[in-house]
Amino acid sequence: MIDLYTDATPNGRKVSIMLEEVGLPYTVHHIDIGKGDQFTPAFVRINPNSKIPAIVDRDAEGGPLAVFESGAILVYLAEITGRLMPRDRRGRTVVLQWLMFQMGGVGPMFGQANHFRRFAKEQVPYAIERYTKEAHRLYGVLDRRLAEVPFLAGDYSIADIATWPWVARWEWHGIDMASIPNVKRWFDEISARPAVQRGRAVPG
Amino acid sequence: MIDLYTDATPNGRKVSIMLEEVGLPYTVHHIDIGKGDQFTPAFVRINPNSKIPAIVDRDAEGGPLAVFESGAILVYLAEITGRLMPRDRRGRTVVLQWLMFQMGGVGPMFGQANHFRRFAKEQVPYAIERYTKEAHRLYGVLDRRLAEVPFLAGDYSIADIATWPWVARWEWHGIDMASIPNVKRWFDEISARPAVQRGRAVPG
Repeated sequence: MIDLYTDATPNGRKVSIMLEEVGLPYTVHHIDIGKGDQFTPAFVRINPNSKIPAIVDRDAEGGPLAVFESGAILVYLAEITGRLMPRDRRGRTVVLQWLMFQMGGVGPMFGQANHFRRFAKEQVPYAIERYTKEAHRLYGVLDRRLAEVPFLAGDYSIADIATWPWVARWEWHGIDMASIPNVKRWFDEISARPAVQRGRAVPG
Repeated sequence: MIDLYTDATPNGRKVSIMLEEVGLPYTVHHIDIGKGDQFTPAFVRINPNSKIPAIVDRDAEGGPLAVFESGAILVYLAEITGRLMPRDRRGRTVVLQWLMFQMGGVGPMFGQANHFRRFAKEQVPYAIERYTKEAHRLYGVLDRRLAEVPFLAGDYSIADIATWPWVARWEWHGIDMASIPNVKRWFDEISARPAVQRGRAVPG
C-alpha cells in the first residue's frame, strides 16, 4: 500500500494521476497547505522540504520508503510497476529529459506566472511580464515538440503526466489555445483519460 | 566521445564537473548565451528548449544520442558509467529525490534570486524579498539535511554535483555561511575536489 500525502495542486495531481494510471492501491492523506499542515513535525519527517506531494511505500523492498519531489515519485512508481517509462536506456533518457524540462522549467515558471498573475498581494508589472513571457515561450517549445510526436517522449509517459496538470491552468496564463494547436490536441487527449479524471479529483 | 555544449553557468558546470569526475573524454563546444548561440537552428536541433547544457553521445548504443536538461544528462552519465548514483532502487531513489529538489527548487529559485538581486534592469522589492526568502529557506533545508549525512544522498553523488554550482553563488544571495555550517562544510569539501576545480573552469 502507498500512502499519498497531497493537496489540490498541479504537483499533487501528478502523483494521484500516476497512481490511477498504474492501478496501485493508495491511501490519501490530505495535507492542507493553506493551513500549514506541511510544516508539522510528522510531515517534515517525510519531506524535509515541507512540500506536497510525498509518498510512503509501506511495501518497499527493505522496509517502508518515503519519497518526496513529484518527479522522483513518478520515476519510482514507473520503475516498480514497469509502466509509463521505457526500460531501455535511450527511451528512458528521452522520458527523463522531458520530465526534467517540466520539473525545472514548466513547473517553476508557470508557478511564478500563477503567483504574479493571480495571487500576489500587489501588482508587479515587471514580474508579470517576465513570467508570462517565459510561460508563453515554454508553451511554444511544447507545441513544436507535439507537432512531431503524439506525446512528449513519443508514447504517453510520466513526462506527460508531469506536464498536464500545469497546462491545465492555461487560462491563468493569458495564452490562446488556438495559437498552440498541438498542445491543445495533446491536452484534450490526456484530459479524456479516465485515470486522469479520477486522479485530478484527488484529494477531493 | 561526448560533445558538450555549455557556457559558464551553474547548470553548465554540473555537466563538466560530472564529466571530470567520471573521466569520460569530451569535446567542449562553447555556446555563448550572451550572443544568442542557443537560438541557432543547429543548437535547437540538439535542445529545442534553447538552453545549455546539452550533450551528444556519439558512441551511444543505437547511434548518436542528444540529451538536454542538466538533470537528465547527469542521470545518463551516471548510468553509462555506473558512477555517482547507486544501482539499487532505494539508493537511486534517494539520489533522484535530492536531484529533483535541486532541479525544481534550488536551481529555479536561486536563479530568480540571482536575477532580481543582480541582473534585473529595475529594482523590484517584492520579487527581491520573495526569492531571497525562498533561497534562504532552501539553504535551511540543505543545512538540516547535511547535519545528518555527509552528502545530500548519503554518499557523494550527482545530487551534490547538481547543487554545488548553485551554492557557489552564495555571496549573491545575502546568506551568511556561518549560519549554515553544515552547508559550508559540504561546500568546502566538494570545492577541494580536483575534478570539481577542473569542471568549474569549463568552458574557460
